[in-house]
Amino acid sequence: MPEEPAMDRADPTDVTLFVCTTCRRAIGESGDFERPGEPLHAALADRLAGVAGIAVTATECLSVCKRPGTIALSGGRRWTYVIGDLDLAAHLDEIVAGALAYREAPDGIVPWRERPQCFKKGVVARIPPSPLGVADVRAAPVSSSTAPSEAAE
Amino acid sequence: MPEEPAMDRADPTDVTLFVCTTCRRAIGESGDFERPGEPLHAALADRLAGVAGIAVTATECLSVCKRPGTIALSGGRRWTYVIGDLDLAAHLDEIVAGALAYREAPDGIVPWRERPQCFKKGVVARIPPSPLGVADVRAAPVSSSTAPSEAAE
Repeated sequence: MPEEPAMDRADPTDVTLFVCTTCRRAIGESGDFERPGEPLHAALADRLAGVAGIAVTATECLSVCKRPGTIALSGGRRWTYVIGDLDLAAHLDEIVAGALAYREAPDGIVPWRERPQCFKKGVVARIPPSPLGVADVRAAPVSSSTAPSEAAE
Repeated sequence: MPEEPAMDRADPTDVTLFVCTTCRRAIGESGDFERPGEPLHAALADRLAGVAGIAVTATECLSVCKRPGTIALSGGRRWTYVIGDLDLAAHLDEIVAGALAYREAPDGIVPWRERPQCFKKGVVARIPPSPLGVADVRAAPVSSSTAPSEAAE
């Protein structure tokens, strides 16, 4: 009997960490470029392998092409966050810590002071959870209009 | 017997059009500012009232503060899109058309040529649907790694 795919065992409140592997970054003045999302994805997948509640997924183009590398965090009833300007060498530990803190927040809103510096500086956008698109909408209505402003903090 | 709330009748594949009502835009050199999202939200709610499958919702801060006004579109198994640099007077008809086209796309990816100009120019980010967060994940697995690149079009 074949083993059940991993996704069928997933908890719908789990977090997905998307890593854009498409965006390009110039290498000096050479005219060459690199794709910083590829090694970033590999490193994050390695660091978060076996960590409960977070799946790391490579994705093509988050449309933040001017601020590579870029990630997005979503899942369950959480606000989705898009973070850019990330660098493997500088930010790997911070991204891992930020993803773990996000996992612990049922609404996805980690208190400002507890966010990694690269998440504060690199935030590209945040989006409320859909009030319609999830099965548990009746049990947990979205309070998108009362969520604290990010800009005010 | 009390009437059932509208949300309980909603289809989980419905679209939500979020409009940020927080971000500020300077008025000339006066030092004063306006919040362009407020009238934009009112106009979109009016234009889309009674339109099936799209709910217009005001939200506080999509964290795109430098590109007001800002909207986001999400729902069902669709990619989420965040669009900035929107202006009520210039773009109302285009935003309505873009939202209707988005509603018709099960994956949320409207062909590039069919997108309103303000959606092409104003795109801030797009995020795949969560592979874990929706009830119908087994029936419709996410193909986030094979979605066409936005940048290449």
